[in-house]
Amino acid sequence: MEKILSINSGSSSLKFKLFAMPDEKVLAKGLFDRIGIDNSRVTIKYDGKKYDEQRELKDHNQAVHVLLSLFKELKLINDFNEITGVGHRVVAGGEYFDKSVIVDEDVMNKIDELAEYAPLHNPAELVGIRVFKELLPNAVSVAVFDTAYHQTMPKANYMYSIPYEWYEKYHVRKYGAHGTSHRYVAHEAAKLLNKPFEDLKIITCHLGAGASICATMNGKSFDSSMGFTPLAGITMATRAGDIDASLVSFMMEKLQINSSEMIDILNHKAGLIGISGVSSDMRDVLAAADDN
Amino acid sequence: MEKILSINSGSSSLKFKLFAMPDEKVLAKGLFDRIGIDNSRVTIKYDGKKYDEQRELKDHNQAVHVLLSLFKELKLINDFNEITGVGHRVVAGGEYFDKSVIVDEDVMNKIDELAEYAPLHNPAELVGIRVFKELLPNAVSVAVFDTAYHQTMPKANYMYSIPYEWYEKYHVRKYGAHGTSHRYVAHEAAKLLNKPFEDLKIITCHLGAGASICATMNGKSFDSSMGFTPLAGITMATRAGDIDASLVSFMMEKLQINSSEMIDILNHKAGLIGISGVSSDMRDVLAAADDN
Repeated sequence: MEKILSINSGSSSLKFKLFAMPDEKVLAKGLFDRIGIDNSRVTIKYDGKKYDEQRELKDHNQAVHVLLSLFKELKLINDFNEITGVGHRVVAGGEYFDKSVIVDEDVMNKIDELAEYAPLHNPAELVGIRVFKELLPNAVSVAVFDTAYHQTMPKANYMYSIPYEWYEKYHVRKYGAHGTSHRYVAHEAAKLLNKPFEDLKIITCHLGAGASICATMNGKSFDSSMGFTPLAGITMATRAGDIDASLVSFMMEKLQINSSEMIDILNHKAGLIGISGVSSDMRDVLAAADDN
Repeated sequence: MEKILSINSGSSSLKFKLFAMPDEKVLAKGLFDRIGIDNSRVTIKYDGKKYDEQRELKDHNQAVHVLLSLFKELKLINDFNEITGVGHRVVAGGEYFDKSVIVDEDVMNKIDELAEYAPLHNPAELVGIRVFKELLPNAVSVAVFDTAYHQTMPKANYMYSIPYEWYEKYHVRKYGAHGTSHRYVAHEAAKLLNKPFEDLKIITCHLGAGASICATMNGKSFDSSMGFTPLAGITMATRAGDIDASLVSFMMEKLQINSSEMIDILNHKAGLIGISGVSSDMRDVLAAADDN
Protein backbone atom coordinates (compact mmCIF):
# COMPACT_ATOMS: atom_id res chain seq x y z
CA MET A 1 0.00 0.00 0.00
CA GLU A 2 1.33 3.41 -1.00
CA LYS A 3 1.85 5.89 1.79
CA ILE A 4 2.54 9.60 1.89
CA LEU A 5 4.27 11.39 4.72
CA SER A 6 3.82 15.06 5.60
CA ILE A 7 6.50 16.78 7.64
CA ASN A 8 6.49 20.05 9.52
CA SER A 9 9.89 20.77 11.06
CA GLY A 10 10.19 23.58 13.57
CA SER A 11 13.32 24.85 15.23
CA SER A 12 13.14 22.19 17.96
CA SER A 13 10.27 20.00 16.81
CA LEU A 14 9.11 17.77 14.00
CA LYS A 15 5.45 17.00 13.39
CA PHE A 16 4.25 14.41 10.91
CA LYS A 17 1.25 12.66 9.50
CA LEU A 18 1.35 9.38 7.61
CA PHE A 19 -1.40 8.89 5.05
CA ALA A 20 -2.58 5.72 3.28
CA MET A 21 -3.18 6.46 -0.37
CA PRO A 22 -5.20 6.97 -2.41
CA ASP A 23 -7.94 7.50 0.19
CA GLU A 24 -5.75 9.82 2.32
CA LYS A 25 -6.61 7.99 5.52
CA VAL A 26 -4.41 9.12 8.42
CA LEU A 27 -2.50 6.06 9.64
CA ALA A 28 -0.45 7.88 12.24
CA LYS A 29 0.41 11.32 13.44
CA GLY A 30 2.88 12.53 15.95
CA LEU A 31 5.32 14.97 17.42
CA PHE A 32 9.05 14.88 18.05
CA ASP A 33 9.50 17.55 20.66
CA ARG A 34 12.45 19.31 22.31
CA ILE A 35 14.86 18.22 19.60
CA GLY A 36 18.36 19.33 20.58
CA ILE A 37 17.15 20.22 24.10
CA ASP A 38 16.96 18.01 27.21
CA ASN A 39 14.00 15.67 27.78
CA SER A 40 13.32 15.12 24.10
CA ARG A 41 10.07 13.24 23.62
CA VAL A 42 8.31 11.29 20.91
CA THR A 43 4.52 11.00 20.77
CA ILE A 44 2.79 9.01 18.04
CA LYS A 45 -0.93 8.27 17.78
CA TYR A 46 -1.83 5.36 15.54
CA ASP A 47 -4.60 2.83 15.20
CA GLY A 48 -6.25 3.88 18.48
CA LYS A 49 -2.95 3.48 20.33
CA LYS A 50 -0.37 5.87 21.62
CA TYR A 51 3.41 5.72 21.68
CA ASP A 52 4.81 8.23 24.15
CA GLU A 53 8.45 7.95 25.18
CA GLN A 54 11.45 10.02 26.10
CA ARG A 55 14.06 9.47 23.39
CA GLU A 56 17.40 11.08 22.81
CA LEU A 57 16.98 13.46 19.86
CA LYS A 58 20.14 15.48 19.55
CA ASP A 59 19.20 16.96 16.18
CA HIS A 60 16.67 16.75 13.33
CA ASN A 61 18.85 14.21 11.57
CA GLN A 62 18.50 11.80 14.48
CA ALA A 63 14.78 12.56 14.79
CA VAL A 64 14.18 11.45 11.20
CA HIS A 65 16.11 8.23 11.77
CA VAL A 66 14.08 7.49 14.90
CA LEU A 67 10.83 8.31 13.11
CA LEU A 68 11.45 5.87 10.28
CA SER A 69 12.62 3.08 12.55
CA LEU A 70 9.52 3.57 14.74
CA PHE A 71 7.31 3.24 11.63
CA LYS A 72 8.69 -0.26 11.22
CA GLU A 73 8.67 -1.06 14.93
CA LEU A 74 5.01 -0.02 15.24
CA LYS A 75 4.17 -1.98 12.07
CA LEU A 76 3.02 1.14 10.27
CA ILE A 77 5.15 0.14 7.31
CA ASN A 78 6.93 -3.04 6.37
CA ASP A 79 9.31 -1.50 3.90
CA PHE A 80 10.59 2.05 3.34
CA ASN A 81 9.61 1.78 -0.31
CA GLU A 82 5.94 1.94 0.70
CA ILE A 83 6.48 5.66 1.35
CA THR A 84 6.32 7.11 -2.15
CA GLY A 85 6.10 10.77 -1.28
CA VAL A 86 7.18 13.19 1.44
CA GLY A 87 5.75 16.70 1.68
CA HIS A 88 7.74 19.26 3.63
CA ARG A 89 6.40 22.52 4.95
CA VAL A 90 8.93 25.30 4.34
CA VAL A 91 8.39 28.69 5.98
CA ALA A 92 10.31 31.05 3.69
CA GLY A 93 10.06 30.69 -0.08
CA GLY A 94 11.00 34.27 -0.85
CA GLU A 95 10.24 35.42 -4.37
CA TYR A 96 11.53 32.14 -5.80
CA PHE A 97 8.52 29.98 -5.15
CA ASP A 98 4.91 30.76 -5.99
CA LYS A 99 3.75 27.16 -5.65
CA SER A 100 4.79 23.80 -4.20
CA VAL A 101 7.71 22.18 -6.02
CA ILE A 102 9.45 18.84 -6.30
CA VAL A 103 12.70 19.17 -4.40
CA ASP A 104 15.96 18.95 -6.32
CA GLU A 105 19.44 20.30 -5.58
CA ASP A 106 18.52 23.76 -6.89
CA VAL A 107 15.46 23.94 -4.63
CA MET A 108 17.53 22.89 -1.62
CA ASN A 109 20.10 25.58 -2.39
CA LYS A 110 17.36 28.19 -2.54
CA ILE A 111 15.81 27.07 0.75
CA ASP A 112 19.28 27.35 2.24
CA GLU A 113 19.79 30.80 0.71
CA LEU A 114 16.49 31.97 2.21
CA ALA A 115 17.48 30.85 5.72
CA GLU A 116 18.12 34.42 6.86
CA TYR A 117 14.44 35.20 6.29
CA ALA A 118 13.36 32.34 8.60
CA PRO A 119 16.41 31.51 10.71
CA LEU A 120 14.49 29.28 13.10
CA HIS A 121 12.72 27.30 10.41
CA ASN A 122 14.36 26.97 7.00
CA PRO A 123 17.60 25.34 8.28
CA ALA A 124 15.70 22.71 10.30
CA GLU A 125 13.40 22.07 7.36
CA LEU A 126 16.34 21.65 5.04
CA VAL A 127 17.90 19.05 7.33
CA GLY A 128 14.62 17.13 7.30
CA ILE A 129 14.45 17.27 3.51
CA ARG A 130 18.03 16.03 3.09
CA VAL A 131 17.73 13.14 5.54
CA PHE A 132 14.45 11.92 4.09
CA LYS A 133 15.89 12.06 0.57
CA GLU A 134 18.84 10.03 1.77
CA LEU A 135 16.80 7.42 3.64
CA LEU A 136 13.93 7.29 1.15
CA PRO A 137 15.72 7.77 -2.17
CA ASN A 138 12.75 6.52 -4.19
CA ALA A 139 10.15 8.82 -2.62
CA VAL A 140 9.20 12.06 -4.33
CA SER A 141 10.07 14.99 -2.08
CA VAL A 142 7.87 18.08 -2.28
CA ALA A 143 8.40 21.48 -0.64
CA VAL A 144 5.25 23.39 0.32
CA PHE A 145 5.97 27.05 1.10
CA ASP A 146 4.10 29.22 3.61
CA THR A 147 4.78 32.25 1.46
CA ALA A 148 3.91 30.82 -1.98
CA TYR A 149 0.19 31.61 -1.86
CA HIS A 150 0.96 35.27 -1.21
CA GLN A 151 3.23 35.73 -4.23
CA THR A 152 0.18 37.03 -6.10
CA MET A 153 -0.05 40.12 -3.85
CA PRO A 154 0.15 43.29 -5.94
CA LYS A 155 3.30 45.35 -5.54
CA ALA A 156 1.39 48.20 -3.91
CA ASN A 157 0.52 45.81 -1.11
CA TYR A 158 3.85 44.10 -0.59
CA MET A 159 6.24 47.06 -0.85
CA TYR A 160 7.25 49.03 2.22
CA SER A 161 7.91 52.76 2.01
CA ILE A 162 11.62 52.28 2.62
CA PRO A 163 14.69 52.96 0.47
CA TYR A 164 14.01 51.04 -2.74
CA GLU A 165 17.45 49.42 -2.78
CA TRP A 166 16.53 47.57 0.43
CA TYR A 167 14.04 45.70 -1.70
CA GLU A 168 16.38 45.25 -4.66
CA LYS A 169 19.47 44.20 -2.72
CA TYR A 170 18.05 42.60 0.42
CA HIS A 171 14.56 41.56 -0.71
CA VAL A 172 12.89 43.43 2.14
CA ARG A 173 9.17 43.34 1.39
CA LYS A 174 5.99 41.81 2.75
CA TYR A 175 5.89 38.05 2.16
CA GLY A 176 2.82 37.03 4.13
CA ALA A 177 2.62 33.75 6.02
CA HIS A 178 0.34 30.79 6.74
CA GLY A 179 -0.28 30.60 3.01
CA THR A 180 -1.14 26.91 2.98
CA SER A 181 -3.75 27.53 5.66
CA HIS A 182 -5.27 30.61 4.00
CA ARG A 183 -5.42 28.91 0.60
CA TYR A 184 -7.13 25.86 2.05
CA VAL A 185 -9.63 27.80 4.15
CA ALA A 186 -10.47 30.19 1.30
CA HIS A 187 -11.17 27.23 -1.00
CA GLU A 188 -13.32 25.58 1.66
CA ALA A 189 -15.26 28.83 2.12
CA ALA A 190 -15.97 28.94 -1.61
CA LYS A 191 -17.22 25.33 -1.45
CA LEU A 192 -19.51 26.14 1.49
CA LEU A 193 -20.83 29.18 -0.36
CA ASN A 194 -21.20 27.02 -3.45
CA LYS A 195 -19.66 29.73 -5.62
CA PRO A 196 -16.63 29.74 -7.92
CA PHE A 197 -13.46 30.53 -5.94
CA GLU A 198 -12.37 32.95 -8.67
CA ASP A 199 -15.50 35.09 -8.25
CA LEU A 200 -15.16 35.73 -4.53
CA LYS A 201 -13.59 38.17 -2.15
CA ILE A 202 -12.71 36.21 0.97
CA ILE A 203 -11.10 37.25 4.24
CA THR A 204 -9.53 34.33 6.10
CA CYS A 205 -8.18 34.32 9.64
CA HIS A 206 -5.44 31.93 10.71
CA LEU A 207 -5.59 32.05 14.49
CA GLY A 208 -3.00 29.94 16.23
CA ALA A 209 -0.03 30.90 18.35
CA GLY A 210 0.98 32.65 15.15
CA ALA A 211 -1.92 34.48 13.56
CA SER A 212 -2.61 36.34 10.36
CA ILE A 213 -5.44 37.68 8.28
CA CYS A 214 -5.47 37.31 4.51
CA ALA A 215 -7.58 38.92 1.82
CA THR A 216 -8.17 36.68 -1.19
CA MET A 217 -9.61 38.34 -4.27
CA ASN A 218 -10.68 36.47 -7.42
CA GLY A 219 -8.82 33.38 -6.37
CA LYS A 220 -5.57 35.07 -5.43
CA SER A 221 -4.01 36.28 -2.22
CA PHE A 222 -4.36 40.06 -2.39
CA ASP A 223 -3.01 41.17 0.99
CA SER A 224 -1.86 39.74 4.29
CA SER A 225 -1.43 41.15 7.78
CA MET A 226 1.92 39.35 8.00
CA GLY A 227 4.96 41.25 6.96
CA PHE A 228 8.60 40.82 6.08
CA THR A 229 8.73 38.28 8.90
CA PRO A 230 6.04 36.62 11.02
CA LEU A 231 6.48 39.34 13.68
CA ALA A 232 4.13 41.82 12.03
CA GLY A 233 0.36 42.01 11.76
CA ILE A 234 -2.20 41.22 14.43
CA THR A 235 -1.51 40.48 18.10
CA MET A 236 -0.28 36.89 18.49
CA ALA A 237 0.37 34.55 21.42
CA THR A 238 3.86 35.92 22.06
CA ARG A 239 4.50 38.16 19.02
CA ALA A 240 3.81 41.88 19.07
CA GLY A 241 2.28 42.28 15.63
CA ASP A 242 2.35 45.81 14.21
CA ILE A 243 4.16 48.38 16.33
CA ASP A 244 5.86 51.72 15.75
CA ALA A 245 9.41 50.87 14.60
CA SER A 246 10.67 53.80 16.70
CA LEU A 247 9.93 51.92 19.87
CA VAL A 248 12.56 49.34 18.90
CA SER A 249 15.36 51.88 19.32
CA PHE A 250 13.62 53.67 22.19
CA MET A 251 13.31 50.50 24.25
CA MET A 252 16.77 49.21 23.23
CA GLU A 253 18.17 52.32 24.87
CA LYS A 254 15.91 52.09 27.94
CA LEU A 255 16.73 48.44 28.53
CA GLN A 256 20.31 48.65 27.29
CA ILE A 257 19.89 45.66 25.00
CA ASN A 258 20.95 45.04 21.42
CA SER A 259 18.66 44.71 18.43
CA SER A 260 18.55 40.92 18.34
CA GLU A 261 17.64 40.80 22.04
CA MET A 262 14.93 43.34 21.25
CA ILE A 263 13.52 41.31 18.35
CA ASP A 264 13.63 38.23 20.57
CA ILE A 265 11.45 39.98 23.17
CA LEU A 266 9.04 41.18 20.49
CA ASN A 267 8.78 37.61 19.17
CA HIS A 268 8.61 35.70 22.44
CA LYS A 269 7.56 37.98 25.29
CA ALA A 270 5.12 40.35 23.61
CA GLY A 271 1.68 39.70 22.15
CA LEU A 272 -0.91 38.18 24.48
CA ILE A 273 1.63 37.14 27.14
CA GLY A 274 3.17 40.62 27.03
CA ILE A 275 0.05 42.72 27.51
CA SER A 276 -1.74 40.29 29.81
CA GLY A 277 1.22 39.32 31.95
CA VAL A 278 -0.74 36.11 32.49
CA SER A 279 -0.41 33.71 29.60
CA SER A 280 0.03 33.37 25.86
CA ASP A 281 -3.15 31.28 25.84
CA MET A 282 -6.39 33.26 25.47
CA ARG A 283 -8.27 30.75 27.66
CA ASP A 284 -5.94 31.48 30.59
CA VAL A 285 -6.26 35.22 30.01
CA LEU A 286 -10.07 35.06 29.96
CA ALA A 287 -10.11 32.89 33.09
CA ALA A 288 -7.82 35.35 34.88
CA ALA A 289 -10.05 38.24 33.75
CA ASP A 290 -13.08 36.45 35.20
CA ASP A 291 -11.28 36.04 38.51
CA ASN A 292 -10.65 39.80 38.74
CA MET B 1 -5.49 97.05 19.67
CA GLU B 2 -5.11 93.60 21.25
CA LYS B 3 -3.02 91.11 19.32
CA ILE B 4 -2.50 87.39 19.62
CA LEU B 5 0.58 85.57 18.40
CA SER B 6 0.67 81.90 17.39
CA ILE B 7 4.02 80.12 17.39
CA ASN B 8 5.10 76.84 15.85
CA SER B 9 8.71 76.05 16.71
CA GLY B 10 10.42 73.22 14.85
CA SER B 11 13.88 71.84 15.44
CA SER B 12 15.45 74.51 13.21
CA SER B 13 12.54 76.77 12.40
CA LEU B 14 9.95 79.06 13.94
CA LYS B 15 6.70 79.89 12.19
CA PHE B 16 4.27 82.52 13.44
CA LYS B 17 1.08 84.34 12.76
CA LEU B 18 0.07 87.62 14.36
CA PHE B 19 -3.67 88.19 14.71
CA ALA B 20 -5.61 91.38 15.45
CA MET B 21 -8.33 90.66 17.97
CA PRO B 22 -11.20 90.21 18.35
CA ASP B 23 -11.79 89.73 14.60
CA GLU B 24 -8.80 87.37 14.21
CA LYS B 25 -7.48 89.21 11.18
CA VAL B 26 -4.00 88.01 10.22
CA LEU B 27 -1.68 91.03 10.44
CA ALA B 28 1.49 89.17 9.61
CA LYS B 29 2.84 85.68 9.16
CA GLY B 30 6.33 84.41 8.65
CA LEU B 31 9.09 81.92 8.95
CA PHE B 32 12.43 81.93 10.73
CA ASP B 33 14.34 79.22 8.90
CA ARG B 34 17.63 77.37 9.38
CA ILE B 35 17.92 78.44 13.01
CA GLY B 36 21.28 77.24 14.35
CA ILE B 37 22.43 76.37 10.82
CA ASP B 38 24.23 78.55 8.26
CA ASN B 39 22.28 80.98 6.04
CA SER B 40 19.51 81.56 8.54
CA ARG B 41 16.66 83.49 6.97
CA VAL B 42 13.65 85.50 8.05
CA THR B 43 10.58 85.89 5.86
CA ILE B 44 7.59 87.93 6.97
CA LYS B 45 4.49 88.74 4.93
CA TYR B 46 2.46 91.68 6.20
CA ASP B 47 0.10 94.27 4.81
CA GLY B 48 0.77 93.21 1.19
CA LYS B 49 4.52 93.56 1.72
CA LYS B 50 7.31 91.10 2.27
CA TYR B 51 10.35 91.18 4.51
CA ASP B 52 12.93 88.63 3.38
CA GLU B 53 16.44 88.84 4.80
CA GLN B 54 19.33 86.69 5.88
CA ARG B 55 19.76 87.17 9.62
CA GLU B 56 22.01 85.51 12.09
CA LEU B 57 19.84 83.15 14.14
CA LYS B 58 22.12 81.06 16.30
CA ASP B 59 19.29 79.60 18.38
CA HIS B 60 15.56 79.89 19.10
CA ASN B 61 16.25 82.39 21.86
CA GLN B 62 17.80 84.78 19.36
CA ALA B 63 15.02 84.10 16.83
CA VAL B 64 12.38 85.23 19.33
CA HIS B 65 14.32 88.41 20.10
CA VAL B 66 14.65 89.19 16.38
CA LEU B 67 10.95 88.45 15.80
CA LEU B 68 9.76 90.87 18.46
CA SER B 69 12.13 93.64 17.39
CA LEU B 70 11.00 93.20 13.76
CA PHE B 71 7.37 93.60 14.89
CA LYS B 72 8.29 97.08 16.09
CA GLU B 73 10.53 97.87 13.14
CA LEU B 74 7.80 96.91 10.63
CA LYS B 75 5.24 98.89 12.67
CA LEU B 76 3.18 95.82 13.37
CA ILE B 77 3.08 96.77 17.02
CA ASN B 78 3.95 99.92 18.89
CA ASP B 79 4.32 98.33 22.28
CA PHE B 80 4.92 94.74 23.46
CA ASN B 81 1.94 95.05 25.76
CA GLU B 82 -0.36 94.97 22.73
CA ILE B 83 0.39 91.25 22.50
CA THR B 84 -1.92 89.80 25.15
CA GLY B 85 -1.64 86.14 24.29
CA VAL B 86 0.84 83.71 22.76
CA GLY B 87 -0.22 80.23 21.64
CA HIS B 88 2.50 77.64 21.28
CA ARG B 89 2.17 74.41 19.37
CA VAL B 90 3.75 71.58 21.36
CA VAL B 91 4.25 68.19 19.68
CA ALA B 92 4.31 65.81 22.63
CA GLY B 93 1.83 66.19 25.46
CA GLY B 94 2.00 62.57 26.59
CA GLU B 95 -0.76 61.45 28.90
CA TYR B 96 -0.55 64.70 30.89
CA PHE B 97 -2.47 66.93 28.54
CA ASP B 98 -5.86 66.23 26.98
CA LYS B 99 -6.50 69.86 26.08
CA SER B 100 -4.72 73.19 25.63
CA VAL B 101 -3.48 74.73 28.87
CA ILE B 102 -2.21 78.04 30.19
CA VAL B 103 1.52 77.62 30.68
CA ASP B 104 2.92 77.77 34.19
CA GLU B 105 6.10 76.34 35.72
CA ASP B 106 4.52 72.90 36.13
CA VAL B 107 3.45 72.79 32.48
CA MET B 108 6.96 73.78 31.38
CA ASN B 109 8.46 71.03 33.52
CA LYS B 110 6.16 68.48 31.94
CA ILE B 111 6.96 69.65 28.39
CA ASP B 112 10.61 69.27 29.33
CA GLU B 113 10.02 65.82 30.82
CA LEU B 114 8.30 64.73 27.59
CA ALA B 115 11.25 65.82 25.44
CA GLU B 116 12.37 62.23 24.86
CA TYR B 117 9.11 61.54 23.03
CA ALA B 118 9.72 64.43 20.60
CA PRO B 119 13.44 65.17 20.82
CA LEU B 120 13.42 67.43 17.76
CA HIS B 121 10.42 69.46 18.84
CA ASN B 122 9.64 69.75 22.55
CA PRO B 123 13.01 71.30 23.54
CA ALA B 124 12.79 73.97 20.82
CA GLU B 125 9.19 74.67 21.74
CA LEU B 126 10.11 75.03 25.39
CA VAL B 127 12.81 77.58 24.56
CA GLY B 128 10.22 79.57 22.60
CA ILE B 129 7.77 79.45 25.50
CA ARG B 130 10.38 80.58 28.04
CA VAL B 131 11.70 83.47 25.95
CA PHE B 132 8.24 84.80 25.11
CA LYS B 133 7.22 84.60 28.77
CA GLU B 134 10.33 86.59 29.65
CA LEU B 135 9.91 89.24 26.95
CA LEU B 136 6.11 89.45 27.18
CA PRO B 137 5.49 88.92 30.89
CA ASN B 138 1.94 90.25 30.68
CA ALA B 139 0.80 88.02 27.83
CA VAL B 140 -1.05 84.79 28.56
CA SER B 141 0.94 81.85 27.28
CA VAL B 142 -0.98 78.81 26.05
CA ALA B 143 0.37 75.41 25.03
CA VAL B 144 -1.58 73.58 22.32
CA PHE B 145 -0.63 69.91 22.08
CA ASP B 146 -0.61 67.79 18.91
CA THR B 147 -1.45 64.74 20.98
CA ALA B 148 -4.20 66.22 23.18
CA TYR B 149 -7.10 65.53 20.80
CA HIS B 150 -6.16 61.84 20.72
CA GLN B 151 -6.22 61.35 24.48
CA THR B 152 -9.80 60.14 24.07
CA MET B 153 -8.68 57.05 22.13
CA PRO B 154 -9.87 53.89 23.88
CA LYS B 155 -7.18 51.75 25.47
CA ALA B 156 -7.77 48.93 22.99
CA ASN B 157 -6.68 51.33 20.26
CA TYR B 158 -3.69 52.96 21.90
CA MET B 159 -2.05 49.95 23.54
CA TYR B 160 0.57 47.94 21.70
CA SER B 161 0.90 44.19 22.25
CA ILE B 162 4.21 44.58 24.03
CA PRO B 163 5.33 43.85 27.59
CA TYR B 164 2.88 45.80 29.74
CA GLU B 165 5.61 47.33 31.89
CA TRP B 166 6.90 49.19 28.81
CA TYR B 167 3.66 51.12 28.99
CA GLU B 168 3.72 51.53 32.76
CA LYS B 169 7.38 52.50 33.12
CA TYR B 170 8.20 54.12 29.79
CA HIS B 171 4.76 55.24 28.56
CA VAL B 172 5.14 53.40 25.26
CA ARG B 173 1.74 53.58 23.58
CA LYS B 174 0.08 55.18 20.59
CA TYR B 175 -0.26 58.95 21.02
CA GLY B 176 -1.46 60.03 17.59
CA ALA B 177 -0.39 63.31 16.02
CA HIS B 178 -1.68 66.32 14.08
CA GLY B 179 -4.45 66.52 16.67
CA THR B 180 -5.06 70.23 16.21
CA SER B 181 -5.53 69.68 12.48
CA HIS B 182 -7.80 66.64 12.83
CA ARG B 183 -9.95 68.36 15.45
CA TYR B 184 -10.36 71.46 13.29
CA VAL B 185 -11.08 69.55 10.08
CA ALA B 186 -13.55 67.21 11.79
CA HIS B 187 -15.45 70.19 13.22
CA GLU B 188 -15.47 71.88 9.81
CA ALA B 189 -16.81 68.70 8.23
CA ALA B 190 -19.65 68.62 10.75
CA LYS B 191 -20.47 72.23 9.91
CA LEU B 192 -20.52 71.48 6.17
CA LEU B 193 -22.75 68.47 6.79
CA ASN B 194 -24.89 70.64 9.04
CA LYS B 195 -25.05 67.91 11.67
CA PRO B 196 -24.04 67.84 15.33
CA PHE B 197 -20.35 66.96 15.68
CA GLU B 198 -21.20 64.53 18.48
CA ASP B 199 -23.48 62.46 16.22
CA LEU B 200 -20.95 61.79 13.47
CA LYS B 201 -18.30 59.29 12.54
CA ILE B 202 -15.66 61.22 10.63
CA ILE B 203 -12.40 60.14 9.01
CA THR B 204 -9.97 63.01 8.54
CA CYS B 205 -6.73 62.97 6.55
CA HIS B 206 -3.86 65.28 7.40
CA LEU B 207 -1.67 65.13 4.31
CA GLY B 208 1.48 67.19 4.52
CA ALA B 209 5.09 66.14 4.66
CA GLY B 210 3.92 64.39 7.78
CA ALA B 211 0.60 62.65 7.27
CA SER B 212 -1.94 60.81 9.36
CA ILE B 213 -5.48 59.56 9.27
CA CYS B 214 -7.80 59.94 12.24
CA ALA B 215 -11.15 58.41 13.06
CA THR B 216 -13.40 60.65 15.11
CA MET B 217 -16.47 59.05 16.65
CA ASN B 218 -19.18 60.94 18.51
CA GLY B 219 -16.99 64.00 18.83
CA LYS B 220 -13.89 62.23 20.08
CA SER B 221 -10.73 60.96 18.47
CA PHE B 222 -11.20 57.20 18.34
CA ASP B 223 -8.09 56.05 16.50
CA SER B 224 -5.13 57.44 14.59
CA SER B 225 -2.69 55.99 12.08
CA MET B 226 0.13 57.71 13.96
CA GLY B 227 1.87 55.72 16.62
CA PHE B 228 4.20 56.09 19.55
CA THR B 229 6.10 58.61 17.43
CA PRO B 230 5.30 60.31 14.13
CA LEU B 231 7.22 57.56 12.25
CA ALA B 232 4.27 55.16 12.10
CA GLY B 233 1.13 55.07 10.01
CA ILE B 234 0.75 55.88 6.34
CA THR B 235 3.55 56.58 3.87
CA MET B 236 4.86 60.13 4.34
CA ALA B 237 7.20 62.43 2.42
CA THR B 238 10.33 60.98 4.04
CA ARG B 239 8.93 58.76 6.82
CA ALA B 240 8.33 55.05 6.33
CA GLY B 241 5.01 54.71 8.11
CA ASP B 242 4.11 51.18 9.25
CA ILE B 243 6.77 48.56 8.66
CA ASP B 244 7.68 45.19 10.14
CA ALA B 245 9.82 45.97 13.21
CA SER B 246 12.03 42.99 12.31
CA LEU B 247 13.42 44.85 9.35
CA VAL B 248 14.97 47.38 11.75
CA SER B 249 17.40 44.78 13.11
CA PHE B 250 17.72 42.98 9.76
CA MET B 251 18.81 46.15 7.95
CA MET B 252 20.96 47.38 10.87
CA GLU B 253 22.99 44.23 10.42
CA LYS B 254 23.09 44.46 6.63
CA LEU B 255 24.19 48.10 6.67
CA GLN B 256 26.25 47.81 9.85
CA ILE B 257 24.59 50.83 11.41
CA ASN B 258 23.25 51.46 14.91
CA SER B 259 19.64 51.87 15.88
CA SER B 260 19.59 55.66 15.91
CA GLU B 261 21.13 55.77 12.43
CA MET B 262 18.44 53.31 11.39
CA ILE B 263 15.59 55.38 12.84
CA ASP B 264 17.10 58.44 11.18
CA ILE B 265 16.93 56.73 7.77
CA LEU B 266 13.35 55.61 8.42
CA ASN B 267 12.43 59.20 9.32
CA HIS B 268 14.33 61.09 6.64
CA LYS B 269 15.19 58.80 3.72
CA ALA B 270 12.18 56.51 3.54
CA GLY B 271 8.58 57.25 2.60
CA LEU B 272 7.98 58.80 -0.80
CA ILE B 273 11.63 59.76 -1.35
CA GLY B 274 12.71 56.24 -0.37
CA ILE B 275 10.49 54.21 -2.66
CA SER B 276 10.52 56.66 -5.55
CA GLY B 277 14.20 57.55 -5.43
CA VAL B 278 13.04 60.80 -7.03
CA SER B 279 11.58 63.22 -4.52
CA SER B 280 9.67 63.57 -1.29
CA ASP B 281 7.18 65.74 -3.18
CA MET B 282 4.35 63.84 -4.87
CA ARG B 283 4.25 66.37 -7.74
CA ASP B 284 7.87 65.57 -8.65
CA VAL B 285 7.18 61.85 -8.42
CA LEU B 286 4.13 62.10 -10.68
CA ALA B 287 6.04 64.23 -13.18
CA ALA B 288 8.90 61.71 -13.23
CA ALA B 289 6.38 58.89 -13.72
CA ASP B 290 4.90 60.75 -16.69
CA ASP B 291 8.35 61.07 -18.21
CA ASN B 292 8.92 57.32 -18.06
